[in-house]
Amino acid sequence: MATNSETSMTRNMENDLLPFFEPASVAVFGSLLQDIGPGYCTIKNMLDFGFMGKVYPINPSLTEVMGLRVYSSLDQVMEPIDLAMVIIPPAMVPQVIEQCAQKNVKAVIIGSEGFAEAGDEGVALQRHVVEIARRAGMRILGPNTLGVVNTANGLMTHTSKIGYKGFLKGGIAYCSQSGLLSFGCHPMEGRAYPVSKCCDFGNKCDVDEVDILNYLVDDPETKVIAMHLEDIKDGPRFMEAARRATAVKPVLILKPGRSTAGARAVASHTGSLAGDDQIYGSVFRQIGVIRLNGWQEFWEIPRVFASQPLPRGNRLAIISVSGAAGVLLADAATEAGLAIANFTDNTVKRLRKLSPRFATNPVDWGPMIAVAADPLSVLEELITTILADSNVDCAIIVVHAMVIGLGLFEKIMPQISKLSKPLTIFNFDSDLDVMLETSRRLQALGLATYFELETAIKALSVSVAYARVALSRDL
Amino acid sequence: MATNSETSMTRNMENDLLPFFEPASVAVFGSLLQDIGPGYCTIKNMLDFGFMGKVYPINPSLTEVMGLRVYSSLDQVMEPIDLAMVIIPPAMVPQVIEQCAQKNVKAVIIGSEGFAEAGDEGVALQRHVVEIARRAGMRILGPNTLGVVNTANGLMTHTSKIGYKGFLKGGIAYCSQSGLLSFGCHPMEGRAYPVSKCCDFGNKCDVDEVDILNYLVDDPETKVIAMHLEDIKDGPRFMEAARRATAVKPVLILKPGRSTAGARAVASHTGSLAGDDQIYGSVFRQIGVIRLNGWQEFWEIPRVFASQPLPRGNRLAIISVSGAAGVLLADAATEAGLAIANFTDNTVKRLRKLSPRFATNPVDWGPMIAVAADPLSVLEELITTILADSNVDCAIIVVHAMVIGLGLFEKIMPQISKLSKPLTIFNFDSDLDVMLETSRRLQALGLATYFELETAIKALSVSVAYARVALSRDL
Repeated sequence: MATNSETSMTRNMENDLLPFFEPASVAVFGSLLQDIGPGYCTIKNMLDFGFMGKVYPINPSLTEVMGLRVYSSLDQVMEPIDLAMVIIPPAMVPQVIEQCAQKNVKAVIIGSEGFAEAGDEGVALQRHVVEIARRAGMRILGPNTLGVVNTANGLMTHTSKIGYKGFLKGGIAYCSQSGLLSFGCHPMEGRAYPVSKCCDFGNKCDVDEVDILNYLVDDPETKVIAMHLEDIKDGPRFMEAARRATAVKPVLILKPGRSTAGARAVASHTGSLAGDDQIYGSVFRQIGVIRLNGWQEFWEIPRVFASQPLPRGNRLAIISVSGAAGVLLADAATEAGLAIANFTDNTVKRLRKLSPRFATNPVDWGPMIAVAADPLSVLEELITTILADSNVDCAIIVVHAMVIGLGLFEKIMPQISKLSKPLTIFNFDSDLDVMLETSRRLQALGLATYFELETAIKALSVSVAYARVALSRDL
Repeated sequence: MATNSETSMTRNMENDLLPFFEPASVAVFGSLLQDIGPGYCTIKNMLDFGFMGKVYPINPSLTEVMGLRVYSSLDQVMEPIDLAMVIIPPAMVPQVIEQCAQKNVKAVIIGSEGFAEAGDEGVALQRHVVEIARRAGMRILGPNTLGVVNTANGLMTHTSKIGYKGFLKGGIAYCSQSGLLSFGCHPMEGRAYPVSKCCDFGNKCDVDEVDILNYLVDDPETKVIAMHLEDIKDGPRFMEAARRATAVKPVLILKPGRSTAGARAVASHTGSLAGDDQIYGSVFRQIGVIRLNGWQEFWEIPRVFASQPLPRGNRLAIISVSGAAGVLLADAATEAGLAIANFTDNTVKRLRKLSPRFATNPVDWGPMIAVAADPLSVLEELITTILADSNVDCAIIVVHAMVIGLGLFEKIMPQISKLSKPLTIFNFDSDLDVMLETSRRLQALGLATYFELETAIKALSVSVAYARVALSRDL
């Protein structure tokens, strides 16, 4: 890692979240019991994910863990500490936070549960901890959080065993107010999400959604911010940060509590008021935030923003190995507000030369495979001709994973990139492993790949809606 | 297999599709070239899927394939043949159909392409083949079809290599007018669809959607019929069959062409007119057909009908390991027309005894796991108490695959079944393999399991809408 604690200290206040994501050194407080202690698991995750900084386990009862020297207390560590990871019983947290303050630690993640989410005693404890930190100018993320991920330096602070060993590095920052929508409960690697950063807000005792927005807007790795929020602590401050962020990159927010029942459930879950949903809706529109409407959209829509350019309009080309998929996509696209592009005469002429059946949109290239001498070359010309058409703003390509090799996309990627039009891929197969592997490789190539036909369309339609606002602002 | 060709011959005309699904003997015409010949692949699939009938490869150039005797021509076979599978060049098809007619074969599946879907010559060829069959009283499925699946006897006629080796036997019959929505292009085993029969209609030169409906309505293995139809050949005949079918079991139809662009794409794909979509919509409503609106609904909604009883109303209980999921589910349920159930005082009292946090719906049982001495017993009482509440019509249970063992569901299945209320499961994990394996095992237990939060709700809401019509008819 290039950054060290000295340089991070010299950055400006907008970047006081740097030690959370780019620490040169991390102290870990927590049980080192093999395989189950939260300290052990956190350190194991950092090692497994290849964290590039230094790790200092703090524990009085051991001298070594996983090849690392264990320090009996924080003051035994001679080097400066950027970040402390604290996963110990709640009653013991204040004294550890005091030690961190004395050591001049910049940032603390409190993973422990048992604070404001757990009743009156927890509320008081949380307030006490915040007071200590404020006095020392130290920032706190949590409590009750899995912490953060930074795929650029391998930082991964999950405090228990996790079901994967790495990330596809990419442009999505996933932030959430709950474990369910975090890196801890979703197969990030298995489904090949291209990730830059993750953050679980936890109880938001100090660091909140506004701090994270302010950090991510300046993060060069992050191309799109996806955020799950059950409440917003300070409306005007949020609006200011979100306005600044949406001017730079897409901000997609899943804010539940749309229904009365949902709002009541929010209150019961986090103790916070969901607020009047209509107000949120109109504020989001006003500041250019894209609103996501559920779990599936939260995970899948950001893909298209992470890798694809913005469309200049809503005219869609459907290029499908399956005629039936073309039909279903035409319906789904129309219902999502996309228009089925009319190819120019020139394109129609060129496509007819390839095959008389190619001239109309949706284009069904399935039957061609059986008869063409070199189907991949035909497909290459088909795709690049259509994407170059001035009547086409975006495209969806339907591939049968087993039938169409990755070679095609490897070959046409430079041309596709040059044409600078967004496309999504709907990828199917009878072999689930083949589907998953093809998807991972297509995502790694920089393509937005979907397993559900309707989500592949929805992503494009959200991209069109966002581009309409963003491009009009640029004019 | 219990049935043989003699008994199938004595059944009535409503069941003249029996030889397609329950043949005692199948003759296969097609290239036996190892691993790639369609004859070879079809036979390989039948053997892999454990077909219980006899298989007779017909091919003049070989004497043995995969341990089976190869016959040089059909008249060399002394035994009666129920079904012939024909995957040979189209020009050669008529003479083989003639041979089948002479041999008194009952049913023929023509897998070959190059008929009505391929232009004028193909249309004439198809007409010729149908004439031969009609004269002989022989039925034809196809051409241009992958054929059929019957999970009860292991019949699987797919004509090329397929990405899985078996089915979860269950109650869904998937029928489609396209390969995309058939058993050939979807991970039926990987995603654990509980399947009874499958049928790819192909060109529908003879056997059509009405014949299949008439067969499936009497099929005891089939609990729900899911059908993808780009066109309906004979409206009045279809209405009669569908009316009869919907009186017996749910019929779910995906009929694209809802949009103008979709209707135009249908015409271009199958050469058939999609028809006025509003007319289809009102006819479907009138005869009690449930309309599916896309690819994801086609695959996922039938699960709930295959294993779950019908709900008596729309009052939903949400029993979630994640508070955030409870919130999202409350929104999704409200938007799908479900009501969040108000538990009776008696239930509230019983739940409060288990934990003071359990009394409101959605119920968040996540925090309980960390503190209860025997969390599975608490969970068992929680679930069965809620399902027994007279104010609850249906439920969704959210499980973290790695956290909650299958033991729970194995234990509570008898009680759940007795209570006779439908439930769906939303299953998540950071480990994709764990998620998939848990889902397969929960499905095998007779539960309807979903990977997408919103689909799990959508399935229940469709079930409620269907039940409202079905139960009012029974009164």
